Amino acid sequence: MKHTIEFLPAGRSIRVEHGETILKAARQAGLHINASCGGTGVCGKCRIRVESGRVRGGLSEKLSHAEIDDQIRQACTAEVIGDVQVRIMDATGLKKGQLSTGVPRRHRAARHLFDIDALRQAGIFLPPVEKFFLELPRPDSTDHRSDATRLIQAMAQQYGERHIQIGLPVLRSLRRVLREDDFRITATLARPVNRDARSRLLQVQAGNWAERNFGLAVDIGTTTIYGQLIDKHSGGILAEGGTYNRQISYGEDVISRMIHAENKEGLRRMHALVCESINEVIGRLLDGARVAAGEISSITLAGNTAMTHLFLELEPHNIRRAPYVPVSNFYPPIRATDIGLELGEHAIALIYPAVSSYVGGDIVAGIMGSGMYRTEKTTLFIDVGTNAEIVIGNRDWLASAACSAGPAFEGGGILHGMRAASGAIEDFSIDPATLAPMLLTIDQKPARGICGSGLLIMIAELFETGILDQRGRFARDRDNPRLRPGRSGWEYVVAWADDTGIDQDIVLTEVDIDNFIRAKGAIHAGIQTLLGEVGLTVDDLEQVILAGGFGSYIDLDSAITVGLLPEIDTGRIMYVGNGSLMGCRMSELSNHIRRDVVAAMQRMTGFELSEVPAYRDHYVASLFLPHTDSSLFPETGQRRRERTAALA
Amino acid sequence: MKHTIEFLPAGRSIRVEHGETILKAARQAGLHINASCGGTGVCGKCRIRVESGRVRGGLSEKLSHAEIDDQIRQACTAEVIGDVQVRIMDATGLKKGQLSTGVPRRHRAARHLFDIDALRQAGIFLPPVEKFFLELPRPDSTDHRSDATRLIQAMAQQYGERHIQIGLPVLRSLRRVLREDDFRITATLARPVNRDARSRLLQVQAGNWAERNFGLAVDIGTTTIYGQLIDKHSGGILAEGGTYNRQISYGEDVISRMIHAENKEGLRRMHALVCESINEVIGRLLDGARVAAGEISSITLAGNTAMTHLFLELEPHNIRRAPYVPVSNFYPPIRATDIGLELGEHAIALIYPAVSSYVGGDIVAGIMGSGMYRTEKTTLFIDVGTNAEIVIGNRDWLASAACSAGPAFEGGGILHGMRAASGAIEDFSIDPATLAPMLLTIDQKPARGICGSGLLIMIAELFETGILDQRGRFARDRDNPRLRPGRSGWEYVVAWADDTGIDQDIVLTEVDIDNFIRAKGAIHAGIQTLLGEVGLTVDDLEQVILAGGFGSYIDLDSAITVGLLPEIDTGRIMYVGNGSLMGCRMSELSNHIRRDVVAAMQRMTGFELSEVPAYRDHYVASLFLPHTDSSLFPETGQRRRERTAALA
Repeated sequence: MKHTIEFLPAGRSIRVEHGETILKAARQAGLHINASCGGTGVCGKCRIRVESGRVRGGLSEKLSHAEIDDQIRQACTAEVIGDVQVRIMDATGLKKGQLSTGVPRRHRAARHLFDIDALRQAGIFLPPVEKFFLELPRPDSTDHRSDATRLIQAMAQQYGERHIQIGLPVLRSLRRVLREDDFRITATLARPVNRDARSRLLQVQAGNWAERNFGLAVDIGTTTIYGQLIDKHSGGILAEGGTYNRQISYGEDVISRMIHAENKEGLRRMHALVCESINEVIGRLLDGARVAAGEISSITLAGNTAMTHLFLELEPHNIRRAPYVPVSNFYPPIRATDIGLELGEHAIALIYPAVSSYVGGDIVAGIMGSGMYRTEKTTLFIDVGTNAEIVIGNRDWLASAACSAGPAFEGGGILHGMRAASGAIEDFSIDPATLAPMLLTIDQKPARGICGSGLLIMIAELFETGILDQRGRFARDRDNPRLRPGRSGWEYVVAWADDTGIDQDIVLTEVDIDNFIRAKGAIHAGIQTLLGEVGLTVDDLEQVILAGGFGSYIDLDSAITVGLLPEIDTGRIMYVGNGSLMGCRMSELSNHIRRDVVAAMQRMTGFELSEVPAYRDHYVASLFLPHTDSSLFPETGQRRRERTAALA
Repeated sequence: MKHTIEFLPAGRSIRVEHGETILKAARQAGLHINASCGGTGVCGKCRIRVESGRVRGGLSEKLSHAEIDDQIRQACTAEVIGDVQVRIMDATGLKKGQLSTGVPRRHRAARHLFDIDALRQAGIFLPPVEKFFLELPRPDSTDHRSDATRLIQAMAQQYGERHIQIGLPVLRSLRRVLREDDFRITATLARPVNRDARSRLLQVQAGNWAERNFGLAVDIGTTTIYGQLIDKHSGGILAEGGTYNRQISYGEDVISRMIHAENKEGLRRMHALVCESINEVIGRLLDGARVAAGEISSITLAGNTAMTHLFLELEPHNIRRAPYVPVSNFYPPIRATDIGLELGEHAIALIYPAVSSYVGGDIVAGIMGSGMYRTEKTTLFIDVGTNAEIVIGNRDWLASAACSAGPAFEGGGILHGMRAASGAIEDFSIDPATLAPMLLTIDQKPARGICGSGLLIMIAELFETGILDQRGRFARDRDNPRLRPGRSGWEYVVAWADDTGIDQDIVLTEVDIDNFIRAKGAIHAGIQTLLGEVGLTVDDLEQVILAGGFGSYIDLDSAITVGLLPEIDTGRIMYVGNGSLMGCRMSELSNHIRRDVVAAMQRMTGFELSEVPAYRDHYVASLFLPHTDSSLFPETGQRRRERTAALA
């Protein structure tokens, strides 16, 4: 059920879900309300008056009886339960005028959705492993065909499946299985990647099991292993979930794990740990959906090149040493049990190929799963994390590069940075006059720190309101207690100790901002360099695909304001979430993707940015907000001018 | 060194090796000398006189001093050591005239020989597994290719080998091996059967091992496992040898082993026993040639359908039950260690496909190895044993059938029958007047019985000289102690007890002859029926290929005389020995054969003789010497008339 809430004095209305807080509704409406505690009700700053209609809650000892009688409430804990009109009280520092309390609305990319029916209609719904029910003719005095020939010819006649090879384990059970239910059987067939190669018969079962055909998609992340259980008959996701990658006990970063893998038994241990983690996820998915391990016929996995090497027990030694060569970028189909996965003997494991040591199978999975490899549109694909992988191209050509952004986007190297967990500040706006913030935290817990997407918004907001200059320096002429010199240069007090969950002021320092600018500069320079290498400019991009947890959930306007993303019509930007997982799922449903990936990788040119001289220049030019060359960000400049002018 | 020996009174000369006995020389010259003891010197019957020149030996207490002075010697122990002229003495019963002591010369088929150089020149010397030495470019700042890509591209550039897939075990060692000898490596490549499929990289070794590439060919016989160690670089055979199939402890025939395989653990035991036997042969071959087990990259095996099932641990249950269907006629390439062969992890085992339950991989190997599948000539291929397998066709079509001949050709069901071992009578001629035989035994040991090829010659000789009639009945009007009624009807005394190694008369009975006629009748009827089914007659056969121990070593004229083989120009008949082993060896040297076998099998029509009505008629008509329809054997009839007329 939705209700309409109208904010005064702006006169702006928005429809929100029943039970939504007034604070979040204001944020959605693009309106600022001072709120220092992240929405937990303790700071008492986010006062509003209910002009008509009713709200639930919003009371606290911070409010006097008189205020309560005057229908004053705290926006952070007051919930919308019907159509309501409220007035934002504490806008003293703002210039007069209806739009003056306005702040940018948040603008996420559109979700790239997959429609299984569309896949079916396009004729590319073709799981790499499929089950077929057959009623075979019985042998008699005029039909002496062997059991295997009988089965193979029936597959050709009934399903048009030809060139089938049967392995020894299946042959060993074939006689018995054929006769167990009077020649009624279910055959599990693995299709080859190469159209001319043979299909392999993985399993035969007595009776009809054609609809019990399941697969797994697994993203092998450095931090998290995430999986989906897929019904290959319907195409649906039956269960999903993740767990921490147990390799973390040997270091959070990939490098330290690769170093450990060079020790005696180290590689084996790294392999065992990630397998344990994957098996844990598999076990949980299967339990939840009441599917037996033996009913899984295939599993597709993707990870970055180092993680894939560790998973497959391939020596990663030369990935981290110049000139950075992996053992292999392509991996053969493997019997799942051969690499320690707790599945049936017949299950096959398919592993996404990589481009290079730094552009791995997770990115390739994203390119394949998002359909970038077959679109006509010139597309920028970008997966932002500690490393950012950038791919530009379309169905005719692809170019890729990776750049090291550092951990700033995950809260690393930021004084009060943290992961996107409970209590992390994820949204922010500022009253440019008073510098009073509006904070929203994850789970509405007292603020404990700033997560990556919150940091992005914060810096964009401070920059757009003129509180930060192009170099990332605070406006030192502002006489305000929230702006002060600190141990790491000047800092802005995001939340006073009393309003936090950590008993100390949460601040944003100029050093933090420098770190952030270097991270976003590396990525922007990567995009510019790669565009330059293929002879294009930002204007040639017809589409942008964001992948990865950070990339997918960022506010697009903020990302453009700071110069992380190039200035592009945000309507052309879409996000795919975990591109690696999505690509694995698509591979489980469409063998065409597995077929096409080899050709796509052959169309891909990998660039080593460190060897492209232009990269350094682009990087240096990107160490500004949004960029040294303001002509690259005309709309951003315009908006900043408008907002600061409104404050003047 | 060879010498010329001239026999009087026939005046026939022959050149023989230094040291050959006079008896064997006479046999070679097509001359009869009475000799009852098989050439051991004890019967004293084979007297000859040395007219000029000298011999060595030939003396015994059976000769008087006067005889010795008169240059009388025993032919069986007298050896040719120079040019010599001898007179055959004991020809009293023969009609006057120079040619009257003549008997048919033995006439074996020409050996089908394989010339590796010819294979090379024809461009089909292409082992299924080959080794390649490569010096790879080292990675540097302009060459970031993965180890695997580096190797694969070098294979394409240096050797034109494309579409290579690398399995996980090789990938796991690749980084280390590449760097062990500074990127100088040897790659072992397995070619696919299917031209469009991928090659598989089985092994990488540091350094240059390209010339150490060995393979094994193994015939899995019911009685004997026979193997050859092949140098795949040169094409030569480095060692060969065999051992008994240890499954014999569960029965000499295939049926009793299949029955045992239906017991709990029985199949596993049958599999283990044949593997042990194969491993014993492999071990001996490797030791003999100083080749390590790890240097074998491939092994090709062939056996009949039941033996192949037992070897691969496939349930043979329905092979022996109507309607006689095997589990499979085609077998995938298998990792040799997966089926218990004691070879390296990378070695692959290739198993010859079968046509049906009764025409197995051993026959297919013969067809492929002999080149029958690609000849323009309409060919009859026949492998005679307990079962006789018959294939007719050429490069455009093939038809096959099997018939049960029974064990007569291996000495089974024959009162004094025995295997072709020491003391077995292997050659025979008769003085048609006195019925005195000329016996030659294997190893020149006192006669212990009659082997299959000896039996064939004996029956042909008795028939051609009129001592046996068309129905296989002895001429009862001959008043001779060697022809007498016995327990199993009339019998001919081949050797008196005193002259034998078994202390009893060795006889040939009419029951023996009946058994032989049924055996040869089954085969001849099979040939006639199969010819009829494909609309041909004997006159259409341009070539006959004999395989198998018995088939290869028989006297062709005898085989035609008794009606085992159709009457055909013996110049068109060739033999290949162990066709199964030969086919395996050819597969090890030419991947074309492995490729072609699938297509050849698809051109093959299998006939079940028991279901062809004409077979019964042909069989009944074949239960005569040589056949009811004498027009089928015009030359045989002519020869018999001439020989018997000479005796009249």
